[in-house]
Amino acid sequence: MTEAGPAAPAAQLATRGPVLLIGTGLIGASIGLALTAHGVPVRLRDASPSAQALARDVGAGEPEGPDDEPPHLVVVAAPPDVTAGLVGAALHAYPHATVTDVASVKARIQHELEGFGVDLTRYVGSHPMAGRERHGAAAADSDLFVGRPWVITPSAVSRTESIRVVRDLAVDLGASPVEMTATEHDEAVALVSHLPQLLSSLAAARLVTAPERALGLAGQGLRDVTRIAASDPTLWASILVGNADHVRRTLRGVRDDLDALLSSLDRAAEDGPLALGALAGIAGLISAGNDGASRIPGKHGGTRRRYSEVTVLVPDRPGELGRLFSEVGEIGINIEDFQMEHSPRQKVGMATLSVLPGVAGTLVTELEERGWRVVVE
Amino acid sequence: MTEAGPAAPAAQLATRGPVLLIGTGLIGASIGLALTAHGVPVRLRDASPSAQALARDVGAGEPEGPDDEPPHLVVVAAPPDVTAGLVGAALHAYPHATVTDVASVKARIQHELEGFGVDLTRYVGSHPMAGRERHGAAAADSDLFVGRPWVITPSAVSRTESIRVVRDLAVDLGASPVEMTATEHDEAVALVSHLPQLLSSLAAARLVTAPERALGLAGQGLRDVTRIAASDPTLWASILVGNADHVRRTLRGVRDDLDALLSSLDRAAEDGPLALGALAGIAGLISAGNDGASRIPGKHGGTRRRYSEVTVLVPDRPGELGRLFSEVGEIGINIEDFQMEHSPRQKVGMATLSVLPGVAGTLVTELEERGWRVVVE
Repeated sequence: MTEAGPAAPAAQLATRGPVLLIGTGLIGASIGLALTAHGVPVRLRDASPSAQALARDVGAGEPEGPDDEPPHLVVVAAPPDVTAGLVGAALHAYPHATVTDVASVKARIQHELEGFGVDLTRYVGSHPMAGRERHGAAAADSDLFVGRPWVITPSAVSRTESIRVVRDLAVDLGASPVEMTATEHDEAVALVSHLPQLLSSLAAARLVTAPERALGLAGQGLRDVTRIAASDPTLWASILVGNADHVRRTLRGVRDDLDALLSSLDRAAEDGPLALGALAGIAGLISAGNDGASRIPGKHGGTRRRYSEVTVLVPDRPGELGRLFSEVGEIGINIEDFQMEHSPRQKVGMATLSVLPGVAGTLVTELEERGWRVVVE
Repeated sequence: MTEAGPAAPAAQLATRGPVLLIGTGLIGASIGLALTAHGVPVRLRDASPSAQALARDVGAGEPEGPDDEPPHLVVVAAPPDVTAGLVGAALHAYPHATVTDVASVKARIQHELEGFGVDLTRYVGSHPMAGRERHGAAAADSDLFVGRPWVITPSAVSRTESIRVVRDLAVDLGASPVEMTATEHDEAVALVSHLPQLLSSLAAARLVTAPERALGLAGQGLRDVTRIAASDPTLWASILVGNADHVRRTLRGVRDDLDALLSSLDRAAEDGPLALGALAGIAGLISAGNDGASRIPGKHGGTRRRYSEVTVLVPDRPGELGRLFSEVGEIGINIEDFQMEHSPRQKVGMATLSVLPGVAGTLVTELEERGWRVVVE
């Protein structure tokens, strides 16, 4: 949970309450926390009484009651398979409210809703691109959406006013609203979210029967590729079946590449490493991967910023990292990014400081003058 | 290159020179740098005169000459496809030297050598599990091997004395020697190194034709999975054809899992998300991925240490991170790991400090007293 410190400004929000949150898991409770912190009245509803009570306890809002004023905005934050039903019921129950949902698949929900015969002019789907590996209101964080894209998927019948209400919610929570159609959204998340999840799981699944000694050789590459393989199976199965058509199209491309790779490897295994076409087939895939990876924008949005990296060996005892950072502060150089890596069985860590290229030389000189051992990348 | 600071101890090494390095790229030059720094005489040979001169310039040793004393140890650090030829020639030219290589495939090289009719009792293959995304002597680093596993693959005929010489080299460079057979090694790297490389490339290759707007939604999951997709195609093609048999066996397992996944997705796409078996098939794969990922030992070797994470919002200006670390130092708590994440379009970073679980509460309280905004995970 977030402990609001003195740095939190209580700016005026555009979002008008009461807001009814249906579903008080990680996403719902995080929305509730952020709105409540800014004085917007939030009511909570969850199929699980204990989940609802937990969300109240972390400060996400108050449980709904029979005498509540009707909501101005309803946010459905439930698993994808129950979302359309909850949205339809809310549109019916609150004839003046804007209703949105935050499910990670969009076209199927839109399609289900069209079968319900409810007033869809007040419905605008959305999907905040935020999350974490932990679940439930206990992991809620009012800063969860800060700086993240929040996809908004109006339909052809969505009212302009309702679209504005959902955009305001995204902006109020610190996110960047991005408008696309439901289909564009589903195609995009198949590529940037569902594809990496499945390839990470496919890689990690091979390790179930791996010899222990082999795993002892694991390096950072394997750790990075398999990090998100720790995700929740039930939640992900529900997300993936809801976007099955786009996901299978992407995965068929993977299977074609994999089949081509396997036939290059077969040639090399049977006719030796210089077998006709074997090297070119493999290098072609790695090379396509180079091209694809280079298209991913940097963390800061836009193209990747180029930083210089300066790696410093830091003794593994209290205060050493503090001394390093306070000396970098004295030198007056801003650290753009930072990574810490420990060497196993060594009482030393490698602290990699990313700085703007123009100042790396100064940083190295100044750190060495202060007795630090520096490795220049 | 490493700038040896006052912290570098010049301990006595077990490795006896002269050492002849054949191949002066990243690995060869890094070995040369570390040995030279400790006073072991190193001679350099590279098919490329400019690569050899660069290695000399960074301090990796002296170019070999006609009057050199014969080497006590020869290290072949060349691409896998030329390694056996160079090892064979060295065994023939220096009848008293131990010869090792550092290629990332082992059984094929052993097999090729057996066809040469040279004295293989003095040959011991090896493979330091270290590297970086940059290549060549300019990226050399005498600390490259510190704390990394260094696999040593003696054959049935390798002399005990030669095995000891290669172990000493690994230990002298700060690595942890791990003995296995060449086949065990090749099977292990197919899983922990070649598999993640290829799945990362397969994922990234799908992005070549992705719409720009889709890529704008990319998050940390996609970035982690595709990080190593930026690797060198030529080098990797040569590594993979050299281990084609083990790699294809691992990839066939991936293809079986992928085919099962595709048939679950086909069912969901055609008969709806509740189609018989669709959810179970997908959840089964994600769940196997959970199990596999949990088997990867932590960075520190052994099982993963459990840390508590404390995330602090840090204003993006010089000195703030320094102030944070120096205050953590004052509090007297050691930081076991650290990650910095910037929010796009926000002048704030999220600094995640990993600390031993028993001290997280104290850290949070003390930081909040000092006015930091803290998010507890």
